[in-house]
Amino acid sequence: MNGKMKNKGELEIIRYLRKRFRKRRSEIQKGIGDDAMVFRDGYVVTTDSFFEKTHFDLDYFSFFNLGYHTMAASLSDIAAMGASPISALISLCIPRKIGMKAIRELYDGFDELTRKYKCDISGGDIVKGQIFGMTITVIGRTKAAMMRSGAKPNNYLYVTNFLGLAEAGRIALMENFRQNEYPDAVKKHLFPEPRIKESFQIKKYATACVDTSDGLSTDAFHLAEESAVRIVIDAEHIPIHSEVGKLCAAQRMDPTQFILSAGEDFELLFTAPRLPKMSGVKVFRIGRVMKGRGLFLSLGGRERPVRPSGYQHIVNSRS
Amino acid sequence: MNGKMKNKGELEIIRYLRKRFRKRRSEIQKGIGDDAMVFRDGYVVTTDSFFEKTHFDLDYFSFFNLGYHTMAASLSDIAAMGASPISALISLCIPRKIGMKAIRELYDGFDELTRKYKCDISGGDIVKGQIFGMTITVIGRTKAAMMRSGAKPNNYLYVTNFLGLAEAGRIALMENFRQNEYPDAVKKHLFPEPRIKESFQIKKYATACVDTSDGLSTDAFHLAEESAVRIVIDAEHIPIHSEVGKLCAAQRMDPTQFILSAGEDFELLFTAPRLPKMSGVKVFRIGRVMKGRGLFLSLGGRERPVRPSGYQHIVNSRS
Repeated sequence: MNGKMKNKGELEIIRYLRKRFRKRRSEIQKGIGDDAMVFRDGYVVTTDSFFEKTHFDLDYFSFFNLGYHTMAASLSDIAAMGASPISALISLCIPRKIGMKAIRELYDGFDELTRKYKCDISGGDIVKGQIFGMTITVIGRTKAAMMRSGAKPNNYLYVTNFLGLAEAGRIALMENFRQNEYPDAVKKHLFPEPRIKESFQIKKYATACVDTSDGLSTDAFHLAEESAVRIVIDAEHIPIHSEVGKLCAAQRMDPTQFILSAGEDFELLFTAPRLPKMSGVKVFRIGRVMKGRGLFLSLGGRERPVRPSGYQHIVNSRS
Repeated sequence: MNGKMKNKGELEIIRYLRKRFRKRRSEIQKGIGDDAMVFRDGYVVTTDSFFEKTHFDLDYFSFFNLGYHTMAASLSDIAAMGASPISALISLCIPRKIGMKAIRELYDGFDELTRKYKCDISGGDIVKGQIFGMTITVIGRTKAAMMRSGAKPNNYLYVTNFLGLAEAGRIALMENFRQNEYPDAVKKHLFPEPRIKESFQIKKYATACVDTSDGLSTDAFHLAEESAVRIVIDAEHIPIHSEVGKLCAAQRMDPTQFILSAGEDFELLFTAPRLPKMSGVKVFRIGRVMKGRGLFLSLGGRERPVRPSGYQHIVNSRS
């Protein structure tokens, strides 16, 4: 149970449940409070729900896109644990308007990623309902799970690739910007890549890890809170992709503020004592871990506390 | 992925998925097509979705009832495999109208059963949505899973307890019958008991097992189909609970026909070479397994084929 695209009310419920349902079974290493639950023998299990209008929009998502996007979000939780996916169970709630052709395309989208990452689709549930939605459960395995809770003072904070691209792409699509001006952003929103392969390299170095689904402020806050440390993000070190810069300029938004709350990039945000040697993937150092508590942003030599807001779509013309 | 309360359209999708997504990973013993997926090392995983108006009705279900009922349905799949539950992940989709008090009561209902069966609640997801619903994933473990596929000619067909009671209770509640005339039925609908403990005794004898969620015809058909055998149900041996008899008389329904399509009893329907020695649980022999294919009903010395219809609520005044 994690913070994927949550608002305050949803986060409040998760806090309540976490306090109430403490671990009782000895087989379980970690229950509520990370990207996935963890069994002592190495299995990790994550479950995420996606509903039309709340989490996706069929106005510009094809069924193939949708299957791909939601499976990427689910596999990203497995990557955040440093695990390999084995099996996915998909529960669909489908209104009458959705026929067999759409279902096949949806599963084409799921399977684009499950095939790539050698994960079976081995169960689920199919129910008719008034609204279109799905819940994806993925089971993975790792010898040693990366948790949110291992960050240590003197570690640095790293992130794979650029942040904010997915939300920039979503806005470009929603607001009918010229898509050829935002190719990386649009691709990132429609077809994000779960960082499964990168996680195998990262876990040799990382002390703590989370996937970036809720915006940098919320995701980094999870690491600070779970690890009981102070994390300082260096605003000047946050890399700004040119398309994010362009979109923020067009929308008169501050790119740093944008990235602090723009979610669904599904990159890996992690702490480590030094820069991992990684092949084929960009890693940026964007902050540092210190003694203390909480999340701070360092800008122009001054540090100010950052509150996690939970990711809400930043521009949504219909709400 | 199983047939829990499915109509023809839903069953068609499950058949398509099963054919399309064959097992690819060697860690997996059984994918789509049983009450739960099975890992070779003994883990079983089941996931079920429940949505308001389709699967439950808050007109007469309290949030506590609802939590209890849906968790019973989910744990019943674990019982059908002969496994012990370890961990549940619950994904909720909640509309604004549902507040924190209702959420707490819902989890009280879940936890009534998870505590009893020593199962953790260790994750899930919370999302806001337009309709109230939930998906429950349960992970269990067993040394040897009971499948739907092991029934052998010369086995007998057995069931725990009476069938049809839950649907009788649902009708009694929906139609505002005098509830004190249907105490067992109403209790069975509101608070069904997953047969976890009984399954430990049954699995010493059983060759195949399924839980009764879709009505006897559909559930027994699953056993016949998966085991590639002919199953003959002896109509005269189906036990009729007095409340089921009374309700069928009042509604001018044939009790045998009623039981063939009345679902959600969450009893165990299994095949075995002989009657298990069981303590503290009623077991009825209601049929036999033969060479051949298909499901048949024997009545008055004549056998006729029975088609599974999938469980639809039998009386539903609003649809």
